[in-house]
Amino acid sequence: MAVHNGTPAMPDSRIRNEALRARLTTAEQAAELIRPDSTVAMSGFTGSGYPKVVPMALARRIEQVAAAGERFRIRVLTGASTAPELDGALAKVDGIELRLPYQSDPEARQRINDGTLNYIDTHLSHVAPHAWFGFYGDIDTAIIEVSAIREDGALVPSTSIGNNKTWLDLARQVIIEVNQWQPAGLEGMHDVYYGTALPPDRVPIPLLAPGDRIGETILRCDPAKIVAVVETNGPDRNSPFKALDQASIDIARHLVDFLKHEVARGRMPKNLLPLQSGVGNIPNAVLAGLAEGGFRDLTAFTEVIQDGMLDLLEAGVLATASATAFSLSPEANERFKQKIDFFRERIVLRPQEISNHPELVRRLGCICMNGMVEADLYGNVNSTHIMGSRVQNGIGGSGDFARNGFLSVFVSPSTARNGSISSFVPMVSHVDHTEHDVGVLVSEQGLADLRGLAPKQRAQVIIDRCAHPDYRAMLKDYFDRASRDSYGKHTPHLLAESLAWHQRWLDTGSMRT
Amino acid sequence: MAVHNGTPAMPDSRIRNEALRARLTTAEQAAELIRPDSTVAMSGFTGSGYPKVVPMALARRIEQVAAAGERFRIRVLTGASTAPELDGALAKVDGIELRLPYQSDPEARQRINDGTLNYIDTHLSHVAPHAWFGFYGDIDTAIIEVSAIREDGALVPSTSIGNNKTWLDLARQVIIEVNQWQPAGLEGMHDVYYGTALPPDRVPIPLLAPGDRIGETILRCDPAKIVAVVETNGPDRNSPFKALDQASIDIARHLVDFLKHEVARGRMPKNLLPLQSGVGNIPNAVLAGLAEGGFRDLTAFTEVIQDGMLDLLEAGVLATASATAFSLSPEANERFKQKIDFFRERIVLRPQEISNHPELVRRLGCICMNGMVEADLYGNVNSTHIMGSRVQNGIGGSGDFARNGFLSVFVSPSTARNGSISSFVPMVSHVDHTEHDVGVLVSEQGLADLRGLAPKQRAQVIIDRCAHPDYRAMLKDYFDRASRDSYGKHTPHLLAESLAWHQRWLDTGSMRT
Repeated sequence: MAVHNGTPAMPDSRIRNEALRARLTTAEQAAELIRPDSTVAMSGFTGSGYPKVVPMALARRIEQVAAAGERFRIRVLTGASTAPELDGALAKVDGIELRLPYQSDPEARQRINDGTLNYIDTHLSHVAPHAWFGFYGDIDTAIIEVSAIREDGALVPSTSIGNNKTWLDLARQVIIEVNQWQPAGLEGMHDVYYGTALPPDRVPIPLLAPGDRIGETILRCDPAKIVAVVETNGPDRNSPFKALDQASIDIARHLVDFLKHEVARGRMPKNLLPLQSGVGNIPNAVLAGLAEGGFRDLTAFTEVIQDGMLDLLEAGVLATASATAFSLSPEANERFKQKIDFFRERIVLRPQEISNHPELVRRLGCICMNGMVEADLYGNVNSTHIMGSRVQNGIGGSGDFARNGFLSVFVSPSTARNGSISSFVPMVSHVDHTEHDVGVLVSEQGLADLRGLAPKQRAQVIIDRCAHPDYRAMLKDYFDRASRDSYGKHTPHLLAESLAWHQRWLDTGSMRT
Repeated sequence: MAVHNGTPAMPDSRIRNEALRARLTTAEQAAELIRPDSTVAMSGFTGSGYPKVVPMALARRIEQVAAAGERFRIRVLTGASTAPELDGALAKVDGIELRLPYQSDPEARQRINDGTLNYIDTHLSHVAPHAWFGFYGDIDTAIIEVSAIREDGALVPSTSIGNNKTWLDLARQVIIEVNQWQPAGLEGMHDVYYGTALPPDRVPIPLLAPGDRIGETILRCDPAKIVAVVETNGPDRNSPFKALDQASIDIARHLVDFLKHEVARGRMPKNLLPLQSGVGNIPNAVLAGLAEGGFRDLTAFTEVIQDGMLDLLEAGVLATASATAFSLSPEANERFKQKIDFFRERIVLRPQEISNHPELVRRLGCICMNGMVEADLYGNVNSTHIMGSRVQNGIGGSGDFARNGFLSVFVSPSTARNGSISSFVPMVSHVDHTEHDVGVLVSEQGLADLRGLAPKQRAQVIIDRCAHPDYRAMLKDYFDRASRDSYGKHTPHLLAESLAWHQRWLDTGSMRT
């Protein structure tokens, strides 16, 4: 099944099924098939594998309709974040009524926080099952990017899988974008598990190690549902790789030291346990630190493959990586394309309900490392909301991993916005991960190991190890007074001032007194 | 293996292994084996199956030591809540340094909230794996109640299993209490899964339906570790059954109507999906409502079997019930003993890491119904803390179920303490279940279906359907002003007053203005 297509013999050889080739059309004509007030499920995860042209054609149509005085809005479901060509274009013309489950587009974020775009922030592993349960209503249209259509009509995924299997299965009609820019050599890298079911018919997922293949390399779709096929040739949203900053390097050092210590204490195998890491600079620094730390034969069971993982695979530090999407810099993407046969042996892309599945995260015992906005004295973590009300991107998969893994680590620089915000506060202004789900906190200042500690003990180590020196005395002062005057002394709080730091920042531009 | 012992022929026939019978001793002598500053893991879950005499003997010893001016404290780990003979007795003599994972004893709770007893509130499914991972340090002693010791030395569990398998496996030394009060007919009702492992060696748990048996009916223990066997003859903490109050009946009615509606919409099978319900009056009312509503062939995959489940099993409404413990009234307990052969065919007791396992809760697709302290406008739920600082009992298994089940329902009367507290507030004072994990809220006023709703939409239905009429205008006023003036309008909040309701209750005794 995993036949490598090689260099295409004909310009259109990416569409190898005759019946579907007959449905080739333009982005504009495909966009005409989408009705106002419908639910449109699209491919895309961390800026890869999203449809490149039909959403923009739809945005132009929405703009025309709006110029004629009519409103045209849709509900947009994806895997996770997409790009300006999708979220940006549709948000700009006010074309999105409801968005889920994760976004990072400035235009969409602005509308969400202006209160004009409804956004549902959802655990990434929950989206597919909740769609199957009918919690989001009917899916009218799916727009899915693929890298090729095989002779038998099977769809070869591109650089992310996300919820594509679910969208193809559930949607009334399907529009396929075939992106020539995506390397033909992706074929064979995917593993689409077709064993999911609705309860009470669910069975164990037969995956025992991150590299296991339990499904098919392609996505299936009833050809009768495919109403349009559009050819594209555009790059994913590949952000340039940023040089590692000192805070990221320091955080990585604390974390790698801790992991070495855990191995030495016999609490983890020498090659650790499958790594999950969020997206960004700090995870890349941690991966670099693991390589320098002498670790070998590591595995990753995660959402997203970034530059750092390619480095580790090439260096032999990482043996296998499982994810649902890539998020590569343009340089890394070039390297990936050149060595795609090497990477295809070591990388498995899965649907996000499998990459993030609680059953698998718990069975494999992942070491889960995620960024955060802020943590409080008692270990509650806010991953999503600035000052309690303004959503940044969304919870993503952090909850899927933090709740179920072997070890739950959250990382952040100790301050933000030039020190005007402390990432360690008396009480977080929004909770995404409760005290029950947070094992270790790390900042550039140090690492707080919260395992086996009661709330007041946690407060002490968080203040001492993680908080920035500029905020330590303030935190200590709050904690001491709360320990004396709080209604209950299990989780001491002075409710009249527990969120005062955030209010002060809103009022004065700084959390400092 | 599941041989029913029948009426004992000899008074001591519950201890049928000669080598272990030779270790029969008194509670006082057994208590002498416990050292100060050690970690003692005990049986017990919702007031059943806890050791009845050794903890009290230990408490007397601690009191004597204290009278001599010395301090004697231990770390106490259990399944969940126990009884005055355990938590109460040890807390009263200040003998507990650290307690986990769940408690409901007034004496222990007082000390926790006075700040003199460290308490770690943990998901009940996490306790066994975290103990195996070494997160709680070494387990020095296990004190485990059983209903019998077989000829081969195997231990027949009593009315709860909780973490007993883990405690027996991990503890350096073991003290067994054999309780003659427990019915001999319990033998064969338990299913102790011995297939767990540490990562990376974990495999799928082969359970496909709530009634499946995947393990053994007994607990194993290396006899060399058993340092004392003590005979007891005492009842579990069986609380009398309270007549259903009107609020519970109303909540149950809303929920049963909703479930009927979901079945009619084709979103659930006619016999629903496995039910999980918390402990208390409301769950009993819901079970009664399901029986009256004409449901048949239901199953339960839950933590605790209460009176209501026995009724449903007898009526044939419930086909099978899986749990880790009983919590029966004295009347129900009598009925249980008399019909134990009937119930043994229909009830399976499992270790709590299996009864609450995320893999199984997700696979089975449980309908999860749990109580709460309060919920906020956006669907965040507080299950544990009064006014943000004073812990009540603990999160228990609510997170294991709410995060992973098919449907996550939280229930509460709309007010507490004679209406001075609203259970629906602008912002919860503590978060145990985030907006991502809450599907439906129910009060006696009505039911708010939050599925597929963005935060501001949720606020509208929570105010309209669940809040008490006395507090609706106040909630609406906060929400309207926050929607206008909040920093971000995704989750509108006015941080200077988001917790003011709680502060007002602390200051004036009422949340009302």
